[in-house]
Formats: sequence, structure tokens, C-alpha cells
Amino acid sequence: MDFRQMVSAEDWEAHRKGRHGDPGGYGRSPALLVVDMTYAFCDPAYSLAAGPWGAMALKHLPGLLQACRERDVPIAYTRLTELIRTHPAAGTISRKRVRGIQEALEAPRANDIVDEIAPATGDFVLEKSGASAFHGTDLLKILIYYRIDTLIVTGAATSGCVRATVVDAGSYNYYVVVPEECVADRAEPPHQASLFDMQMKYADVVPVSAVLEYLAGLPPRLADR
Amino acid sequence: MDFRQMVSAEDWEAHRKGRHGDPGGYGRSPALLVVDMTYAFCDPAYSLAAGPWGAMALKHLPGLLQACRERDVPIAYTRLTELIRTHPAAGTISRKRVRGIQEALEAPRANDIVDEIAPATGDFVLEKSGASAFHGTDLLKILIYYRIDTLIVTGAATSGCVRATVVDAGSYNYYVVVPEECVADRAEPPHQASLFDMQMKYADVVPVSAVLEYLAGLPPRLADR
Amino acid sequence: MDFRQMVSAEDWEAHRKGRHGDPGGYGRSPALLVVDMTYAFCDPAYSLAAGPWGAMALKHLPGLLQACRERDVPIAYTRLTELIRTHPAAGTISRKRVRGIQEALEAPRANDIVDEIAPATGDFVLEKSGASAFHGTDLLKILIYYRIDTLIVTGAATSGCVRATVVDAGSYNYYVVVPEECVADRAEPPHQASLFDMQMKYADVVPVSAVLEYLAGLPPRLADR
Amino acid sequence: MDFRQMVSAEDWEAHRKGRHGDPGGYGRSPALLVVDMTYAFCDPAYSLAAGPWGAMALKHLPGLLQACRERDVPIAYTRLTELIRTHPAAGTISRKRVRGIQEALEAPRANDIVDEIAPATGDFVLEKSGASAFHGTDLLKILIYYRIDTLIVTGAATSGCVRATVVDAGSYNYYVVVPEECVADRAEPPHQASLFDMQMKYADVVPVSAVLEYLAGLPPRLADR
Repeated sequence: MDFRQMVSAEDWEAHRKGRHGDPGGYGRSPALLVVDMTYAFCDPAYSLAAGPWGAMALKHLPGLLQACRERDVPIAYTRLTELIRTHPAAGTISRKRVRGIQEALEAPRANDIVDEIAPATGDFVLEKSGASAFHGTDLLKILIYYRIDTLIVTGAATSGCVRATVVDAGSYNYYVVVPEECVADRAEPPHQASLFDMQMKYADVVPVSAVLEYLAGLPPRLADR
Repeated sequence: MDFRQMVSAEDWEAHRKGRHGDPGGYGRSPALLVVDMTYAFCDPAYSLAAGPWGAMALKHLPGLLQACRERDVPIAYTRLTELIRTHPAAGTISRKRVRGIQEALEAPRANDIVDEIAPATGDFVLEKSGASAFHGTDLLKILIYYRIDTLIVTGAATSGCVRATVVDAGSYNYYVVVPEECVADRAEPPHQASLFDMQMKYADVVPVSAVLEYLAGLPPRLADR
Repeated sequence: MDFRQMVSAEDWEAHRKGRHGDPGGYGRSPALLVVDMTYAFCDPAYSLAAGPWGAMALKHLPGLLQACRERDVPIAYTRLTELIRTHPAAGTISRKRVRGIQEALEAPRANDIVDEIAPATGDFVLEKSGASAFHGTDLLKILIYYRIDTLIVTGAATSGCVRATVVDAGSYNYYVVVPEECVADRAEPPHQASLFDMQMKYADVVPVSAVLEYLAGLPPRLADR
Repeated sequence: MDFRQMVSAEDWEAHRKGRHGDPGGYGRSPALLVVDMTYAFCDPAYSLAAGPWGAMALKHLPGLLQACRERDVPIAYTRLTELIRTHPAAGTISRKRVRGIQEALEAPRANDIVDEIAPATGDFVLEKSGASAFHGTDLLKILIYYRIDTLIVTGAATSGCVRATVVDAGSYNYYVVVPEECVADRAEPPHQASLFDMQMKYADVVPVSAVLEYLAGLPPRLADR
């Protein structure tokens, strides 16, 4: 299924007359975000795991990470803050989700970034308790430091922390790009609906090959962008 | 269609094993948010308008507003900031959406709250340029002033500014309640998918009658909560 | 009095051993902030007015504004939000200050930017209820839009909204520059102490001539920075 | 020296005519913040250390902490994020301060909370890279969770992170109280000037005995406030 076919022709028209879905384009200085790609969200053995999309994202992310590293593109990962485990009352994504998340975090390695896409020296690993990677973290100041204007957002879940991060990035005036093969969710309908909504309102949802092509065209050094 | 039937039995199970969708409950001191219920989003003559849900929300909101006013529940409306019209470059929800929104704001009354649910003296009207009602506004300090712990979120669009506000409210640790009849969108699939996602992750999506019952049980004065 | 002589030789040493006061330098893409230069804060007839520094700032700001406009440097002004007057309970800088500020806003033109430095078309005028120009405003997204890395902060009061803005700008990783002649306060001791603290911790406090020289060396077009 | 005598009679009048310095009062549900009371800021062996005030604060804080624990008052400590050491470029309070802070963090125990006032189980320890305890942390959501309306702010440095936290707390509409004996700085002039400014604009600066008296009058359980 292609998210672009998710709505009827009439509904498509209802969106397009307000020019929803116009392409946003890319800026000249991107950063890559990898949202919550921990064992808790990727490994089917865990209760929070994203389905087959998790495996697909893990297949496509190493190439994207490599392309970013070759071009000096800053990379930030997120994972859950340990505060959630030790302070159930307050360090939560939301009051209602805390029980499942706390249980998930009890498992060994639950909150480790998956080995295949492990952070390299110099990458940022941000711990968060909210849905968006911007919530209660140092993400903004890192992006400001490097004069970033474009965020490439990947990870899990499409309808959860990925989308929340994309919405905030749009509100802060970043160009936002979502490589479709690099985001994952637990079920197809929410996954497709969030791809549709992001394309309509906040981001360019594109094949990862288009992102690789964009990266290849960048000046090799961050300071020259 | 009921959003609870949006996913397959298998996908439902994938969500429930991580305890997604557990009810979050209500606190003791609510506020009501009415997101972007302006002519631009409600009146079918405008290009951004939400479909038949807009009419439904306008039918149910007056009763909810009255119940809140009778119980001294603070009310905040949002609408777009005029900065979007005068400073297209920077005062935007996102770079890609600016053109449609700017065009919409040119129309007379486009950015006025619809008359049937017009703000009363003492209500807050917040102007925003981002998706979430928390983004670049004084909403947080107003909620803190009144020691609010519960947000009732209504308005348009379900898959846009309503959802973005709900996500932020959950990240800030508020109890979040969405009266299903009081939110509106342009098309059914995104509307249903956002109701589903909000119930699974961030809010209690309930009939407006349940919210009215909750309000009726509150102490009449804000200072006693 | 020079703020650099404000502390004893011993206290100076106490700061310098932790390398406080090292120059921070400038980036390549500045914006200018003019904080709260309204009649309420500048005109001695008003109860909140900054003293003789207000007049000095008004003398030096026109040249700085002109230099910025010639070089395509974005300019943002702040003033108080009207919410403070209409909603005393919640739209305040702080609970304790509201009475004086409300009274001040009752006066005619109190909240207008002073004519001599009036905003031009294209400048931003942000309304705020907090001390910092970042609090509850769209300032960050404007800076991000233009890929700004350097903030030149001016206005009143040095020990109040100017300093609060400088602290936030430093926390967000901007280079911060304060042209000494362009900030104003109600009394000398707090003015000098804030210049000292800003130089030690958050900003380069320099003569306005140094800022003019920096601006003169910039590429003329924003897009080339 | 008493900060209340820091300015001349004329300057005092200049502040009072705008009603600066009016008492703000206390709310009914406080939390205690202990800002950056690590060895780096308290132990004279470290380059960032606060002077004799550090010793005074360490003498008075244990009693205040005990009173808070007896009354179920939530307690949050801050210290610097380790990101500052490993990512000098981006995880900094400000570009100019990074070198001194990095050097300080190399020392053993530099970033540990001082033993005499060590956090107890259930206390929050927030890691921050900015001046304010609100910047890039989960402080707001913790305060919202407990329906806090009053912040008691202590720690170091008075003119640095304490003041930045006080300013933000005021902007968010919290009642702010600073027990004078529990804040510390490197030198007397900045210390006194910040006490003066905080009293004039953002907080009630009071003897710690007044805070203990306030705490003694609270209902013993947080849920009853």
C-alpha cells in the first residue's frame, strides 16, 4: 500500500485546495536524527516493538548513516531516559503509557541502540522522556551550533516519536525530510496515515535513494555549508 | 466507522501487549482548549476547511463551553498569528504549508473564531505559528497559574494542530482528554487514525457526554480543586 | 565607572581561574534584538523607565539599526504582550511585578516602540510576557529560518529582560554580543553588575563601534553567510 | 553588606515607583531546587568554586532538605551534563565558558553533588547544559506532575544558574522564594546585585528561617495541597 492512495479522490482534493502536500525541499546543511531505535522498539521479543518495518529500517539505516558520516553530517540518536524506570511518577512520555514502557525497560538491553546502527564517536545520544526528540533535550542547541537547516528524521514509531519530532521540527522552521524506508511502526494503518499526514503538512516523505542523492551533492565539509 | 476498529486484531494485539491504550484518567483541575476553530478551518468556503466534522464540532462545543464556564474551568482558544501573513518567510507553521495558509488568511474573517463559539470575557485567545498550542505561546504559564492538571482538547484539525497539542500536553504530564465529537478534520482516514493514535499513546478519547459528566462532578470553584 | 573594575583583584582572580570572561567571538550571520524599548521603559515620565542610560541607548541605536539594515541583518523588537493588561492573573512577567506593569500599560503609548527607533517594514515585533525574548515567542524559529549564529542584544533593562535574553541566547549556543552603549537600566549598580556577569559568563560586552566594524566586514547579502 | 542597601536612595525610589520589589508571596504546593551544588562549584580546590558562600549554603541546606522531606516536598538537584565533557562543541552553557567548565569536569568528583547534601531515593537529579534548570531538562513536567506552584531555589552561583532558574520560574508563573543563606557566588558584588535584582523583579529573597516556617505550616501530605 502506498500512503498517497490512503484517502479518496475527494479527500485528496480537500487537502490539495489548501495546497497541503506541496514539496518543502531541502536546505544546505542537514543533520540526521535516529529516533528510539533501541531493542525495546526494534526487537520483536519486546512488547513495544515495531513490526516488519523495524527490520526494514535496520536494513536501510546503515547506508544512510555511512553517507552522513562521509559528508560530515551531524547525527543524533534518541533513546528513553532512565528517569522513566526510576521515577515512574514523573519521568514519563505520558501518564497512561508509563506502565508498558517501564515493563519494557526492565528487560536487558531494552534501552540500548541496536548494534547494527550503533552510535560512533562524536555522534550525539540524547535521552528523552517525551514523544518529540526536542522535548526536554539539548537537540535545539546542537542544531543551532552547527547551523543546521534541514532534518532527516528516521526511526520508530512512525505514528509516535518520529511524527512528534517531525511536527516540532516543522514548527521550528527546519526543512524536514523523512526517508520512507527508514521509519517503522507497529501496524500498517497508523504507519501509512502518519506518512500521509507528514507529507501533507510537515515534511517531504521520499525514498531513501533521494536522500542519498541529496547528501552526495553536498559540499564535503560542514563548515562550507 | 469507529477508530477502535481501524486496525486488525493482530495489530490491536501488537499495541496492547505494550499496554498501549490503557485509560489515563482525569485529574482534579481541568482547562479547555479550543484549537483553531476559525472560519478558515470551519467554513467550507475556505480552502483549509475541515469537512462535515467541523459542523459536528460546532454543534457540540457550545454545550461544553457552557459547562466549563459554569464550573470556573479556564478556557483558551488558539488561532493563527498574523505574523504568518505579514512575514511569510518566518512566521509559518512549516515552510511547505505557508502558501496555502497565507492565501487562506487573505480572506475576510478567515482568522476569526467562529461566532457560535466566540470567546467570552476572561477567556484566553492565543496566537500561534506552530502546530501545537504550546509552541511559541503563553499556554504553559496560564496552565501553571491555575494549577491545571487536565487538558480537554477540542478543535481542528484532528490530525494536525489538535494532535500536536495533545502530544505536547502528554509530554508535559497533563492528563489529556479528547471529546470525540468536538474534533474535526478534512478527511475520514487521517481523522480516525489520529483518534486511534491519541487513544493508544497520549489521551483518553471519549464521548463528549463523559466529559460533561466529569465536569458536573467538579467542585464549583477553581480555588477548591 | 567601568564594570570591569566592579570586583576586587581577588574576586577577579576567582573568576579568571575558571576562565570566566574569555572572549566568545562572533559568528558569520548575526541578528539584532531590540528589547522593550517602549515609552514605558524609555520615557522618564513612566514609572518603569530606565534612567539616563535610556537616552544613551536611544542615541546609539539608530546608527546600529541602519548598519544592520544596510547589510540585510534581520532585526527583531520586543514589547510586552497586551495579555498583561487584559488578563492580569496569567499574562505576567511574574506574579509580583504585575501591578506596576499593568499600571504602566494604562498610560497612552506606554507599550509603543519609541519613535526614533521605530520598526521598519520587514522587522519583527514580538510580544512577550516573560523576561526573556525567547519565552513564549517565535524568536527561535525566526533565527533558525535565517540560519543566524550571532545575536546582538540591545535595549532595556540591562539587569532584566536584556540579561534574561542574553542568558537564553547563550544556552541555545548563539554567539552573544552586547554593545555597551545600547543597553539601559534604572540604576548604576545593577546595570554594571549585569554587564560584568554577562561578560564573565554569557556574552562579549563591547563598544558599539566594535559591533559596527564587525557588521561592515560581513558579506552584504544574508544568503551568502 | 545587605543587598537592600546596594543602591542609592534615589535609585531605590526609581525602582519602587514601578512597584518593583513588592512581595510575591507563597503558594500552597512548593518544590525545592538545589542548583549545581557539586564539588566543582563548592570545593575551593576547583577553579569554578563559589567562595565562602558555598560553605554557608552547605551549612544551611541540610536543615532545609530535612524540612522538605518531612513534608513530602519534591526535591530536584541539578548538575552539569556529561555531554559537556565528551562533546565540547555543542553541549555547553555557552561557547565562551566551555573551556573552563571542561577543565573543571576533568577533576575527580567534580560533577558529583556534595556528600553532605547528597540526593535521597526519590529525589530528582537533572543534568543540564544551560544556565537555567529549565533549559533542556524535564523540570517543567516534574513540577506539573506534582501540581507545584512555588519554587524554593537554592545553590550556586547566585549570579549564574540560580538567577537564570529564578528568572525562568517567574516567567512560568511560579511563586519563587530564595532563602538568602542558601545561595552562593564567587564574589560579593555579583552575589549582592543578583539578590537585589531577584527581589526587585522575580522572587522573594528571605531568611531561610522564613522558609522553614512556611514549610512547617503546610499540610503534611503532597496530595492534600
